[in-house]
Formats: sequence, structure tokens, C-alpha cells
Amino acid sequence: MTTKTHGALPANPGQLRPDAARRLFREGLITPTAGWSRGFAQANLIIVPQALAFDVLLFAQRNPKPCPILGVLDAGETTGPLLAGGDIRTDVPLYTVYENGIKTAEVANIAQYWRDDLVTFIVGCSFTFEAALQDGGINIAHIDQGVNVPMYRSNIRCTPAGSMSGPLVVSMRPVPASQVADAVRITSRYPAVHGAPVHVGNPAELGITDLGRPDFGDPVAIPPGHIPVFWACGVTPQAAIMESRPALAIGHAPGHMLITDARDTHYQVP
Amino acid sequence: MTTKTHGALPANPGQLRPDAARRLFREGLITPTAGWSRGFAQANLIIVPQALAFDVLLFAQRNPKPCPILGVLDAGETTGPLLAGGDIRTDVPLYTVYENGIKTAEVANIAQYWRDDLVTFIVGCSFTFEAALQDGGINIAHIDQGVNVPMYRSNIRCTPAGSMSGPLVVSMRPVPASQVADAVRITSRYPAVHGAPVHVGNPAELGITDLGRPDFGDPVAIPPGHIPVFWACGVTPQAAIMESRPALAIGHAPGHMLITDARDTHYQVP
Repeated sequence: MTTKTHGALPANPGQLRPDAARRLFREGLITPTAGWSRGFAQANLIIVPQALAFDVLLFAQRNPKPCPILGVLDAGETTGPLLAGGDIRTDVPLYTVYENGIKTAEVANIAQYWRDDLVTFIVGCSFTFEAALQDGGINIAHIDQGVNVPMYRSNIRCTPAGSMSGPLVVSMRPVPASQVADAVRITSRYPAVHGAPVHVGNPAELGITDLGRPDFGDPVAIPPGHIPVFWACGVTPQAAIMESRPALAIGHAPGHMLITDARDTHYQVP
Repeated sequence: MTTKTHGALPANPGQLRPDAARRLFREGLITPTAGWSRGFAQANLIIVPQALAFDVLLFAQRNPKPCPILGVLDAGETTGPLLAGGDIRTDVPLYTVYENGIKTAEVANIAQYWRDDLVTFIVGCSFTFEAALQDGGINIAHIDQGVNVPMYRSNIRCTPAGSMSGPLVVSMRPVPASQVADAVRITSRYPAVHGAPVHVGNPAELGITDLGRPDFGDPVAIPPGHIPVFWACGVTPQAAIMESRPALAIGHAPGHMLITDARDTHYQVP
């Protein structure tokens, strides 16, 4: 998985309203969405047949740090309040299709896969707290370096639910040692979008042997004096899909998120 | 519904460990649990056949203030980490049984109703933040008056999910006008157990015409200068069961809660 852009980028993606951003993706633009529509929550996506929906929802309930559910579209529904006027089949820049747990396609829309029994789960994304980190004076390496956030399969197992089981996937951001406490404090105010870090400082303990080779996204350079800080990641349900091997499941391509109409501030706690 | 006690009360229920409290209930003690096992989270209960479980879980996801899920026992499971060594069929002091949406029994254990397809939802309870309110210097009227918290069906409709729909049930605590802001601030730190109030000060706007006649629990006297403050209540799923009319559903009797092994502080956010 590498960062992909196909199509003409708008001049100021950070200033686009969510519905305008979704329209560009609907019309075929493919690009990672970091920095787009500032102030609005971006989201991970996991779409499964109704027969698997209870397992997915229960998996999310039991693993709220990687799988904070922001909204659920009923079976066959293609729009909802988080994407008013939108269409879940077209409004994400890039989708990943899994058949029997194997990634079989990356597509710009999923019209050809759509079925009336598909249930859509919209899952919180750490992009929401990245703006808060930046506002707190903490630089985000992958944004500064113009790449997708690095993500890793950890050796921590999620709590299983029915047929759903898999590893905790984590995202990593290098933070100056003097700002690690601030990063914890700031992100802990966003429990609906992964919240506080799950681990600070020792990738080996998470089973990560080489930070330069992420399982999803792009590697980032770690400046001297920076500590690798790990947050639970919304790609986790897709890792569980790969283990659980349902006949069909669809996710977003990592880093290519659904831009919702919800404001980031809506998910902040005191 | 009034407060019920049958059996000999222990000398210091506030000091009992949760497992010791559950044992007393298992052995037949019936009593409201307010003030029991201080520091440990008490919980609402809703038990439904597996065929209804997705609707209940989705209803909870869509209505997180009244229905914050703390844990789910798989179909047929009778124990879990929130009640280590316990038995969900016996460890709550009093249960309410609904058949076709009608309350048909109040029983001290549900062994005779148990089926292998029953899924148990353990739902956060405002008792968790009551201790925090008291620590903040805010008196809790129903505790001081030795009765169950008053609960009301409001005219606010929950967001439906599948077959589950119903009114938001609210609990009411009178708070001195000078402490209302403190009550909001303190309870907003506990989003997993109903969080901040849903309404402050005007019961008529919630469709409540007589605070002296609650739908569940007991009335409390409202001292002069106190404002009625309303929080979302974990009896809400039971109100939805009454509307949705499944063949069988089981809840706790209001005020007679499951005492869990989780600490109240576990549910506090910064």
C-alpha cells in the first residue's frame, strides 16, 4: 500500500466543505485525505453482509480504542446523516475489496459490488486528533513529510467477537520526548477517535521489528530525540476481516477516508 | 414500581466487595443497590434472544447517552469479566421479565427463563457519577431521602434501530441552582455512564407534567432553590422493549442493579 493520487487536486483541500470534497471523489478523484476539510471528522469504513453485522458491531464494542463507531447505515442504505446527500458507494476516494479475507481489488467506487444486505460501519479516525495535536504545537511527521501515516499489525490481539478476531493495528507518530506527555493529554480528550496512545516508545514490545516497513501506509523518518508513539488504528477491523474470511467485505483504502459532516470538536470530551 | 427490600441487609453494604454483594443477591437478598460497594460500577441489564441482539446493540450505538454498553455476554454465556465468578441469572437482586412487551414477572432469579440463545447487555448506570457528585459536594436527594432515584418517560424519542424504538427515559436529581454548573462539569467526565445531563430545569419541555409521579423509582422532595436536572437513564432499553414487544426480554428491576467488578474511575475521562 502506498500513497496514491489520480486526478487534479483542488487548490485548497483544507478549506473544502465535506460535501464538496465527497463530490470530487464521487467524480473520480483518488487521493489520500489527510489535511482535507479541516475541522471535519474523517472516518474509516467497514462494510459487511448483514449476517456478519452483529459480529462486527460486537467486535467494535469490545475493542473501542481501534473501532470507535461513529455511525451505522442500515442494510442496503447508501447515505446517512454523516454524509448528507452523499453516497457511500462512491464518496470515498479509494476502497479495498476483500473476498474470503483476501484483498481482491482496490477501486474508486463499489457500485459493482453493492448488495441490499450490506451494512456500513463508519469508524472514527485519528485524523481528528491530529489537528488538535498540531494546534497544541506538536508537528505531525507524516503530514510534514507529505506521506500517509505508517500503520503496523501489532502482536496485541483484539478481544474476539463471534467470527471476528485479529490483531490490533496501530498507527505511529514520532513525538519529541518533551512533548510526549502533551500528546497523551491532548489525544485522551478524543476517546471517540482512538483516544490516548496504546503504547509509547518500544516498538519491539508490540512485535514491530522495523518501523521503516509499515504494514499499511508509508514509512516516516524519525528525527533524533523523537519517541515513536502508537495509537489504535481504524484499519483494525480490516485486519480482522482478513482473518475471519467472510465471502465479501469492503473497507476504505488506508489513508483514503470518508470525509463526514461531523465536526472534530463534536468528539472532544472535557 | 417502588423500592423493595426482602432479607437481612449487611451492616456496611458500601464496604462490600462486588463479589460478596453478588453472593448475597444470589442467595436471595432483594434490595435496591444505591450506595452498595462504593467505588465499583453498577450496571443496568437487558437480556434478549440472539435474533434481537443486533437491533439492541445498534440501538445502543445510536443512543449512547441512555445506553452506554459496558459489556456483552455471548449467547448462552452466564458470566464474564465484569462479574468474575458470578452468574448473570442470579446475581442481580431483582429482575423484570417482559413477554411480548408486557411486564409479566418480577423475580429474584431468572433460572426458569434462561435459554441458550439469550444475549446479555450490561449497560452503564448513573450511580457511577453519583459518588463523584457527592465527592464534589453535591447532595443526592434520593440517597439522602433513602429512596430509589425517580425516572420518567420523556417525550424525546430515541433514534430507532431495526425493531427497537422508544422514548428516552430520564432520571432526575434536584441540584441547588448554585451547583448546577458543577453537576454538569462533573458528570460530563463520565460519558460511559450517561455523561452530562440531557436537560436542566424545565420538566414540562420533556413532557413530564408531575415530578411527584415518576414512571419508575420513587418521587423525591425538591427543596426550595433546587433545579430539577435530568440525565439519560439506563432503563431506556426496557422502555423500547415495551414498544418493540419481543416474545421474551429480561431487565433488572429499576434501582436493583448488577454490581460489577469494574471501578467507577475506569469510566472517567480527563
